[in-house]
Amino acid sequence: MSVRPLDPTRDARILDAVLELLAEAGYVSMTIDAVAARSGTSKATIYRRWRNKREITVAAMARYHGTQTEWTVDTGTFRGDLLAHTRRFADVLTGFDGRLAVGLVQARAADPELVDELEARFSSGARLPAEAVGRAVERGELPGPADAGLFEEVVASVMFMRWLWRLPLDEGFAEHVVDDLAMPVLRANAGRAVEE
Amino acid sequence: MSVRPLDPTRDARILDAVLELLAEAGYVSMTIDAVAARSGTSKATIYRRWRNKREITVAAMARYHGTQTEWTVDTGTFRGDLLAHTRRFADVLTGFDGRLAVGLVQARAADPELVDELEARFSSGARLPAEAVGRAVERGELPGPADAGLFEEVVASVMFMRWLWRLPLDEGFAEHVVDDLAMPVLRANAGRAVEE
Repeated sequence: MSVRPLDPTRDARILDAVLELLAEAGYVSMTIDAVAARSGTSKATIYRRWRNKREITVAAMARYHGTQTEWTVDTGTFRGDLLAHTRRFADVLTGFDGRLAVGLVQARAADPELVDELEARFSSGARLPAEAVGRAVERGELPGPADAGLFEEVVASVMFMRWLWRLPLDEGFAEHVVDDLAMPVLRANAGRAVEE
Repeated sequence: MSVRPLDPTRDARILDAVLELLAEAGYVSMTIDAVAARSGTSKATIYRRWRNKREITVAAMARYHGTQTEWTVDTGTFRGDLLAHTRRFADVLTGFDGRLAVGLVQARAADPELVDELEARFSSGARLPAEAVGRAVERGELPGPADAGLFEEVVASVMFMRWLWRLPLDEGFAEHVVDDLAMPVLRANAGRAVEE
């Protein structure tokens, strides 16, 4: 009997199975048995690599975020950049990301330490690059530097809540988010930063 | 054998059991069997009154919202009122409301029609009364009328997201929410309303 050769894609298949099961059934229902069945491996194989459900979930989320490419855009105006990032987050949220997020919400009660680890390591898909704010300041569209993180805080939260309630994330809503929420928040905080 | 007398508290006990199970285990895990066991009734009794899990959940949420009293405050300043409503929502969220909300998030995939019905009928606990905005306009703290719903949209979303990630909803965060997010949004939209 020869030793079975290392399968370089096996880890990836296992972690993809974790992601699929999180999105389909949620963290509480996901079992290592189900991961083994979905990935065509065995529980023993999985436990040789990861100690428990928390570890394999963190590894799967790291793989997921690793496959996401940094998304940037330069439309020539600050409003255009904000709209593009808002539309992009709507696409992300209505795709696999939203189902994955809902699957992970259960972990808040079931495994608080997992939530702490995910919070510390991964960001939402609504990040606004600092360069977009820098360009807006150069063009005089913002009175001074503003914390780009405010965009993610407001936009990711408001859109996730709206998506949870199954309300449309359409163009009208993207314009509302940018014109009525994100832009006022960034302008007010840019002004504040300049004054201090 | 006499007919068993009507128990006026029985419906209430059943609906309270639904709320407890939603908060403890979530919508997917909640079964009519578990509701019967928790409330000391039978499945037959429950099914005579409600047709299915969706109906009993809507009834339970109606009972829950019915027990919540309208909360108002008048601190003398708009910032004071916004802070008070923000602190109050933090209390609500870190109590039973937050666990209930997480229990219901599962329904997004499991029972979309339930989510649509809850969305149409019930609001979050972060409502800002229109009177608070009216007083701010009278005192000259806002340049004109603003949609009080913007407060709930921003504050409920941002605080729910933060609570999901187990980050502190403390006094410093309440001040950030009011000064950096809610106030700029309400001011910008009040200004806009006046201009039009």
